[in-house]
Parts: sequence; structure tokens; C-alpha cells
Amino acid sequence: MTSNRTTPSRLAKRASYETDTINAILDEALFCTVSYVQDNQPMAIPTAFARNGDKLYIHGSVGSHFIRSIEDGAPVCITVMLADGLVLAKSAFHHSVNYRSVVIFANAEKVTDDAERMNVLALITDHLIPGRWNDLRPTTDSELRKTTVLAFSLAEASAKIRTGGPNDDPEDAHLPTWSGVVPLHTVRGTPIPREGGEHVSLPNYLP
Amino acid sequence: MTSNRTTPSRLAKRASYETDTINAILDEALFCTVSYVQDNQPMAIPTAFARNGDKLYIHGSVGSHFIRSIEDGAPVCITVMLADGLVLAKSAFHHSVNYRSVVIFANAEKVTDDAERMNVLALITDHLIPGRWNDLRPTTDSELRKTTVLAFSLAEASAKIRTGGPNDDPEDAHLPTWSGVVPLHTVRGTPIPREGGEHVSLPNYLP
Repeated sequence: MTSNRTTPSRLAKRASYETDTINAILDEALFCTVSYVQDNQPMAIPTAFARNGDKLYIHGSVGSHFIRSIEDGAPVCITVMLADGLVLAKSAFHHSVNYRSVVIFANAEKVTDDAERMNVLALITDHLIPGRWNDLRPTTDSELRKTTVLAFSLAEASAKIRTGGPNDDPEDAHLPTWSGVVPLHTVRGTPIPREGGEHVSLPNYLP
Repeated sequence: MTSNRTTPSRLAKRASYETDTINAILDEALFCTVSYVQDNQPMAIPTAFARNGDKLYIHGSVGSHFIRSIEDGAPVCITVMLADGLVLAKSAFHHSVNYRSVVIFANAEKVTDDAERMNVLALITDHLIPGRWNDLRPTTDSELRKTTVLAFSLAEASAKIRTGGPNDDPEDAHLPTWSGVVPLHTVRGTPIPREGGEHVSLPNYLP
């Protein structure tokens, strides 16, 4: 799981190539950012995704400029970041962020088998809202034809993690400034029914 | 604020070039992702930032591979995304995400004036934790020398926003499936003091 591209030059102690570590971050994060190159210009798009085994999947409209730019296997860099906390030190210099991130270098492989494509759409849907897929009417052939599904190998994936409190300088320890961590969480609020749908009861997979 | 690069080819109704719209998203988001190109390979790094006027600023170690790759003005794409909600439709096809995002195409300008550099460090610190900077001991010359500060013009910035409920097909309206929006929020938890710092009272700018 390592290559020149995934080996960090600094702060190497924060890096990990453990499959379990990488997978846990990918499974918790809701969105990734896919970066690619067009005419020497970097481009980046946030999008939903899902992981299955050693592959990460995204989907999009067959007409999407983004999807068409990468579907033939142009190199991409996919990043995922979970921000866990703001680290407040006694000096500005030692302020930091607790985070878990994954960086993946890969090339898209277009998924062509319809059963596999349908399975990926279920995975992406249930990644965002576990239990949702089985509650939906079947996806039609026409909807499936309008959708491109791309797979990316996780062979060149690495994780970076920072945890814990501030690394204050010993000579700052006596300063009266509060230092520590302000945790950050992503939470789901009370579901808001669509207009006219107030009478439909909430499924038990929603908060 | 428009260019070929910032004009979307699809779903143009979601795009905005209004400075106020762009600035509000940048001011609310805590992190951005900076994408750049190295040997035809896209690379992307999540990082803290701050906006001031029509500039976005980041900072990093003078030894950082990332900072050194872009400090001489290589083209970058900076993305910011606020995920506001999961949009649940009655079909998988119409599931969506409510979000506010900004994409910026720019080239780094190195900030060389020490007073301006110090001001940017204050802005980035207070962007993450409003009120923090004035509570800290002064940043030393040595710390400042170890820090690179980069500015990016917002001239080529655009925002994309999706709000509201699902766009269900009319023929799906009768289906008994719940549809609507599950809001997403980023919240700050109870601050955790550093080991041995439990006696220091919380400043009033912390939650």
C-alpha cells in the first residue's frame, strides 16, 4: 500500500498504510474530493462515494463534465478528511487540528456490468443513509443508463491521523492561557419531510 | 468573477458569482482543499485558511513539500464545501445533497511583509476560534521565520448551492416512502483541557 506518492516527507509518524485504518476513515466520511488535471490545470470536485473491499466508488451523470474528464482513466487524487477537533495551544505556532484523512492515487475504471452498477448505487445510497436502499422503488433501466459508475483501486491509499492535546513548548507551560482541544462533530438534525409528505411516518433508520 | 474555468456546463442554476455569497461560504467553512499538479499527477491537501477582502490565505511550514510545490505560483484549485443536508427522494435517482461550495482557480502569491504575515496568522487563528489570537503570547521571530504565508486571489471564484427538498418524479408522489431532508450540522463539543491544565478557566470565546 505504499509508493513514492504516498510516502510523506514530513511528520511521517502521522501516516498509516493499515487497511483497517484507511477503511474505517472511508466508511465514516460522507464525502470525498476528487482532484484531476485538465490542460495542466488542477480541478477538484466534492462528491459522495462508497467503499467496498479494496475499491472506492463514485457515480455521476453520463453528461457530467467532471465524470467525462476522468472516466477514461486519467490520474486522480481522492482525499477524505474527518475533522475531529481544534487543538488550542498556548502559542499560535502550536495550534493544530485533530483529523483523520485519507489520500488515494488512482485511475478510474468504468463499471460496465449492470448488476454491479446497481449494487454500487445501493452501496452509495446506504453509505449516506444506512437502510435507505431497501425502502426505495427499483431503479429503472432508463435511470441506470443515465448514470456512470466509476471504481478506484485503494492500492495506493494512505491515512494521516492526528490525535491528542497540544504540543506546547515547555517554556510556555506556566502561561495562564487555556489550552486543550475543542472537539468537532458532524451531527444529523431532525428530518424535514417534503412538502405534502408530513403524514408519512419516519422510517426507523432515520434519526 | 467569471471565466471559462468557472462557468459550469450543467446545473448552471446552482452557480453563483456573487461576492457576498462566496464570502459567506468561505467565512463559515473551517477547512479548504488545495489541489495542484505535480508531474502531471493531481495532488490535494486539506488545510486551514482565512479570507480577508478579495484574498484567501493559507500558511504552512517553510519545509512542507506541499507549500514548496505551490509557493512559486503553480496553478491551484481550492475547494470548500459545507454539507447542509442529505436529500432523500422516493427514488434512488433523485437522492441529492444540500450543500454550499466554492471553487477557486488561482496562483499563490508569497506574502513577504512580516506585519502582513503576522496579520494573516491572526486571521487564520481567529477564523477557527474567534477571539483566540488576543489570548496568546506574541509569536516569536523564529516562529514567523519557520512559517510560509500564501495569498490567493478570489477573482476566479464561484459558488454552487443546492437547497430545498427532493425533486421527486410526479409519478412517484403516491409512493409511501418517506422523502425529505436530513439536516447535517458541524458542532463544537465541550472543550477538553490539556493534561495538567484542568485548573485554567475557560475563556468566554469558547463554547
